[in-house]
Amino acid sequence: MVRQPELYRTHRALDALGVPPGTEVVLSGWVQRRRDLGSIIFIDLRDRSGIIQLVFDPARGTPPEVMAEAERLRSEYVINAAGPVERRAEHTVNPRLETGTIEVLVRRLETLNAAKHPPFYIEDDIDVDEAVRLRHRYLDLRRPQMQRMLMLRHQVTRALREFLDARGFVEVETPILTRSTPEGARDYLVPSRLQPGEFYALPQSPQLFKQLLMVAGLERYYQLARCFRDEDLRADRQPEFTQLDIEQSFLSLAEFQSMMEQMMQHVFRTVLGVEIPVPFQRLPYQEAMERYGSDKPDLRFEMPLSDLADIVRDAPFRVFQDAIAQGGVVKALVAPGCAGWSRKQTDELVQFVGTFGMKGLAPIAVAGEEFRSPIAKFFSPEQLSAIAGRAGAGDGDLILIGAGPRATVLQAMGALRSKLGHDLGLIDPDAFRFLWVTDFPLLSYDEEEGRWVAEHHPFTMPRWEDIDKLESDPGAVRAQAYDMVLNGFELGGGSMRIYRRELQERMFQALGFTPEEAHRQFGFLLEAFEYGTPPHGGIAFGIDRLVMIMGKGKSLRDCIAFPKTSSGTDLMTMAPSEVSPEQLEVLHLSVKGPAAKPHGTAAAAPRG
Amino acid sequence: MVRQPELYRTHRALDALGVPPGTEVVLSGWVQRRRDLGSIIFIDLRDRSGIIQLVFDPARGTPPEVMAEAERLRSEYVINAAGPVERRAEHTVNPRLETGTIEVLVRRLETLNAAKHPPFYIEDDIDVDEAVRLRHRYLDLRRPQMQRMLMLRHQVTRALREFLDARGFVEVETPILTRSTPEGARDYLVPSRLQPGEFYALPQSPQLFKQLLMVAGLERYYQLARCFRDEDLRADRQPEFTQLDIEQSFLSLAEFQSMMEQMMQHVFRTVLGVEIPVPFQRLPYQEAMERYGSDKPDLRFEMPLSDLADIVRDAPFRVFQDAIAQGGVVKALVAPGCAGWSRKQTDELVQFVGTFGMKGLAPIAVAGEEFRSPIAKFFSPEQLSAIAGRAGAGDGDLILIGAGPRATVLQAMGALRSKLGHDLGLIDPDAFRFLWVTDFPLLSYDEEEGRWVAEHHPFTMPRWEDIDKLESDPGAVRAQAYDMVLNGFELGGGSMRIYRRELQERMFQALGFTPEEAHRQFGFLLEAFEYGTPPHGGIAFGIDRLVMIMGKGKSLRDCIAFPKTSSGTDLMTMAPSEVSPEQLEVLHLSVKGPAAKPHGTAAAAPRG
Repeated sequence: MVRQPELYRTHRALDALGVPPGTEVVLSGWVQRRRDLGSIIFIDLRDRSGIIQLVFDPARGTPPEVMAEAERLRSEYVINAAGPVERRAEHTVNPRLETGTIEVLVRRLETLNAAKHPPFYIEDDIDVDEAVRLRHRYLDLRRPQMQRMLMLRHQVTRALREFLDARGFVEVETPILTRSTPEGARDYLVPSRLQPGEFYALPQSPQLFKQLLMVAGLERYYQLARCFRDEDLRADRQPEFTQLDIEQSFLSLAEFQSMMEQMMQHVFRTVLGVEIPVPFQRLPYQEAMERYGSDKPDLRFEMPLSDLADIVRDAPFRVFQDAIAQGGVVKALVAPGCAGWSRKQTDELVQFVGTFGMKGLAPIAVAGEEFRSPIAKFFSPEQLSAIAGRAGAGDGDLILIGAGPRATVLQAMGALRSKLGHDLGLIDPDAFRFLWVTDFPLLSYDEEEGRWVAEHHPFTMPRWEDIDKLESDPGAVRAQAYDMVLNGFELGGGSMRIYRRELQERMFQALGFTPEEAHRQFGFLLEAFEYGTPPHGGIAFGIDRLVMIMGKGKSLRDCIAFPKTSSGTDLMTMAPSEVSPEQLEVLHLSVKGPAAKPHGTAAAAPRG
Repeated sequence: MVRQPELYRTHRALDALGVPPGTEVVLSGWVQRRRDLGSIIFIDLRDRSGIIQLVFDPARGTPPEVMAEAERLRSEYVINAAGPVERRAEHTVNPRLETGTIEVLVRRLETLNAAKHPPFYIEDDIDVDEAVRLRHRYLDLRRPQMQRMLMLRHQVTRALREFLDARGFVEVETPILTRSTPEGARDYLVPSRLQPGEFYALPQSPQLFKQLLMVAGLERYYQLARCFRDEDLRADRQPEFTQLDIEQSFLSLAEFQSMMEQMMQHVFRTVLGVEIPVPFQRLPYQEAMERYGSDKPDLRFEMPLSDLADIVRDAPFRVFQDAIAQGGVVKALVAPGCAGWSRKQTDELVQFVGTFGMKGLAPIAVAGEEFRSPIAKFFSPEQLSAIAGRAGAGDGDLILIGAGPRATVLQAMGALRSKLGHDLGLIDPDAFRFLWVTDFPLLSYDEEEGRWVAEHHPFTMPRWEDIDKLESDPGAVRAQAYDMVLNGFELGGGSMRIYRRELQERMFQALGFTPEEAHRQFGFLLEAFEYGTPPHGGIAFGIDRLVMIMGKGKSLRDCIAFPKTSSGTDLMTMAPSEVSPEQLEVLHLSVKGPAAKPHGTAAAAPRG
């Protein structure tokens, strides 16, 4: 039995760069690789800080028993080594290693632990099935790029806290075991043992509690809150996720938005050294949809959609005429420099927009003064010039035109814009382009329910100047709601809240609720609002996504230490799992349906 | 409809102290109280920072319409007021108010919101049933002492993070939806919709994941982690709680303990301005039990237990003789200055120790040279003097002696010591007395199972010098496990972990596990340990309790924003609750037993 060494370390690998040559250091870490040159052995030692070369050389004083021990080392063995730091000879400097100018001449060595041969190399850009990486997540996380992502996440949350703490925001923890709600996504439920037949629900967000903290006079609250939604998991969604949840009282919408911009500026400056300009562009929802076909446009490139209806209205082209006659739209965008694209290339785009339900896509290539297009014959030269002018197309560009129902065309053309932006290399991968999308509609008409429903939630504040349309023209009322968008992702969203009873009652009326229905659905929250609720509002940011964008990750799974697959499985612990009949018994539950699968091997989570 | 005021505030109440007289300020907050003096109205305005007096006086320029509005104000109305800050006249200074030397002469006033009369006063030390406070938690949290507690909690977690961040610890979030484990307390379960009949479990601690992060080479991890235990709730326990979870690699036990001491020193210095001396006292478990009858002794006062066996062994007093003959103990402690206590008073103590199963308590009062006691006759004067000498009793003191089985006597006398310390006012309420209790036994013999079981968990490291007793004398092996104790509470506990396979196998053997059983119970964790596990160890601190002690709270519920009752109910949201049959249907579950109760009124948790 090896006891522990007298000292695990005096320095980390990277710290050894800072000591004068000859300084004795003690290091601990993992064997990254071993090269055996007959009489000399080189070991790359890895710790969290980086990698350093250890030299075992009898000619330079490594004792024979240390040579023998070094010969036994294999990849991922854990070792403790001591000796002087030496400058490397000029021709042995390794420019690919941060510590490539130095090495440690080992005089003492202890093997702290052996290791089996790992199932994949502990290095970046490995080509390994993700399932294998997830099953051995503890090895996957040893890879430098995963360690960097964990650090980045820590630095981001630290910078966020730093900013908010300095402005008097107080972090408050709200319950994870809470109450199931009638609205929103599907809840994860937790059966109660003490109250048979009753269930807690895991929170979809701390919305309820953060508004109550404003009623409680806390004025400025935040929380890095774990949230849960039992939704069908798309490729890149997790059943649990972390949001930065913020709520404040007594700030105007403009003051609050400005503060949130400064927060992002602080985070990017502190963590990445990148300067984000403020104020962010504001784009009303309607304009975002019309101009970019998206409520979260990627503004790292422009490529706007333009409206051609007034130009093409009278041309004898049925597709456009029908679309306009049926209340639809005709929208164009320009693929710069793509006038020479083949039929095959444009057909692929037709197929692409087809997946969004758009029936076709008319291309017009601009070649000098000429317009080449299968539909050119339907338009006069003046009309074609007007189209090019409106779209902003010049020589060598390709105009792509979609027509049909407004929602379908906007979505399809928005997706096409995004695809072309990527495919044509129009996007600066190092750019961070923020904007606010504002003025979302407060209500939308639900054909199925035959009533107006809240777009955000029923406590969202209308714009002051729109309040009087609540009864006369509900669809025209804009909300004091806002999304923060970064590089085409919705980073966060929030709203100012209704805080006065008379307005809340008008809102419920607009939603077709009787006072009794409102009470049944929103119970004590409405009661709480009666006791002196301040003007308040807030926002919630997706931390996993923010980290993914900042770290240029490919998937949310790269930003979460122990993620789940799209079927909600943790491949390492194999959660979820069967539980014992006794466990179900005390919860007053039985499982319906096909017989249970046999028990798998169990994961232990001892206490301490 | 009132629109929002041009500006909600230029200052908070307390900030107004810092401005020159005559400065115009705009304030927002709640009406704490209103005094109507006929022509003049005084309003105490409360915001998060404190309270300030507003004056409405027509003679000093308050316009008539503002006077009229002020007359309509009631307690807890939310208002926005503007006017110049003025120094109060000498005789109107209010020394009980931090801002008592100033007032704001109101020129403009807007009522932002009305309020119903609250069910209790928004002030400290109210005498209200806790259930009422919990039901209206949003009002309870308005009280200054609750706000202070929320702030304190924030400051404590901030200081902890500050300390750990500066030392290279990385906060990593581990899953809340994880796997049920065969050991430990009862798990809360979460049914999986996608995998019928399978369940996630909420973590009792991140133990598993933090050790895996050490395997992953993270070296220094922490997390403010939400943990869950479905135990029968004692008066002061919560189903969910927060722990500061820490794990590190490559630090010796002594280095790690010293770092944790410095962390507490930092927190107390930063948050309370209190200097905690380091290093903390170390007390081996055996000594703590023998000397204080507790493994978490309150050392704010001394009052040690002393062992009388050798003195009283030969005296003809059957109770003591029997106890010793049966392998038990005779233990004394001294109640200073209590020689004059009545029979009734000592009888109450007998009753008290009786609740711990101890059969009696023999009092000996020391009065000058005399010993007064119903049992004095059984002992020689020399024996009585020896007893007093051993116990450390002098003139006027009362010696209390218990005898019986070791465990019973130690527990009862330990509780008695604690009770007397409080009752006799021996405890400085402002003192913070830290210590480490160390060297817990690694194993204890479970009579029921007929085998040795792990006291902490099966990965706890034995002391190096005790390892060779694992087979020969398992009960004598001490663990590298430690508790941090503060003022009689266990603040945190942890251990160094076994990281080498051969020792782990010996440990499993000592526990009577076959390799197959070990694999079935501890599955992939053992596999992970094969890939190069570094020496590591850690600790977990109860944050709720730390905040309670620092804030001198009476209950954990005072340190948690939205706590649950001892039956696990949130009286505000009324969680847990019934859920719809459809919700159970998609989870493949049915509830057994008596018919469900009718639906209550629902709590809303809209999204956003």
